[in-house]
Amino acid sequence: MSEKPKDPVQPASDEARQMARDLITTARFCALGVLDPETGFPFVSRIALGATPEGGLCTLVSGLSAHSRALRADPRVSLLVGEPGPKGDPLAHPRLTLLAEAEPLPRTDALCDRWLADHPKAKLYIDLPDFFFVGFRLRAGSLNGGFGRAFRLAPEDLG
Amino acid sequence: MSEKPKDPVQPASDEARQMARDLITTARFCALGVLDPETGFPFVSRIALGATPEGGLCTLVSGLSAHSRALRADPRVSLLVGEPGPKGDPLAHPRLTLLAEAEPLPRTDALCDRWLADHPKAKLYIDLPDFFFVGFRLRAGSLNGGFGRAFRLAPEDLG
Repeated sequence: MSEKPKDPVQPASDEARQMARDLITTARFCALGVLDPETGFPFVSRIALGATPEGGLCTLVSGLSAHSRALRADPRVSLLVGEPGPKGDPLAHPRLTLLAEAEPLPRTDALCDRWLADHPKAKLYIDLPDFFFVGFRLRAGSLNGGFGRAFRLAPEDLG
Repeated sequence: MSEKPKDPVQPASDEARQMARDLITTARFCALGVLDPETGFPFVSRIALGATPEGGLCTLVSGLSAHSRALRADPRVSLLVGEPGPKGDPLAHPRLTLLAEAEPLPRTDALCDRWLADHPKAKLYIDLPDFFFVGFRLRAGSLNGGFGRAFRLAPEDLG
């Protein structure tokens, strides 16, 4: 009789929640995974990441990009935040996978002001007609705090 | 009558092929997108990336990880390579999205030696019983060489 492998993922702790929130609030960009509507493959690209005035997560994307076409077809996305620095083992650096649903956000002055405060270089393209804001409703999180330190997080652990 | 939006993605050029190959050969880690078998969401995590002795792309993963369970259920994956440095606009930094199919690779001495030459810290876990090698058969590439410089690449452009 074979033994079931032990689940290496731990439930949320206060330390894991704090680490996850720090990774989210300091991220200015991330890897975005979407579902490619033509092939069904996952498709990972880099996007800017920021906060809405209400404290949610959002991005500003071009409507001509592959990822924006994909998330209009299927709102299920994944975000990876937590960039390794130039030194040390990149796989020992904490990172957080988020599962979320994407939704277009109405453009408001408060949202644009907040975005430009965090992403000053976006002033070059924020007013181009194909650019729009997308919000992310968080569904789950998976924190990897380094080798052997994996935690499962619920939406309420993340905000 | 509305005009069809212009496709902003250009066909491969020699410069785009060279940039893509440089991004692949210098990457020691990447963002991996898989399909979560439980929810159907894309799931993005960080993995080590390296070359096989034959020049293919591969990784070394734990069989206990969420991504290795996912790619056993569905081999369709996406890889994002090209890490921004600590300075400058991260969205102006070149990066490459690859679509690929994952397949377990037999463990050989030549593969382990090559992996350890590129990832010396892996000596801590390469011999653990749950770790195994996975190869990636490339299906397509999408190069973003900076704002407004997007290229579509075929497998033969990448190797």
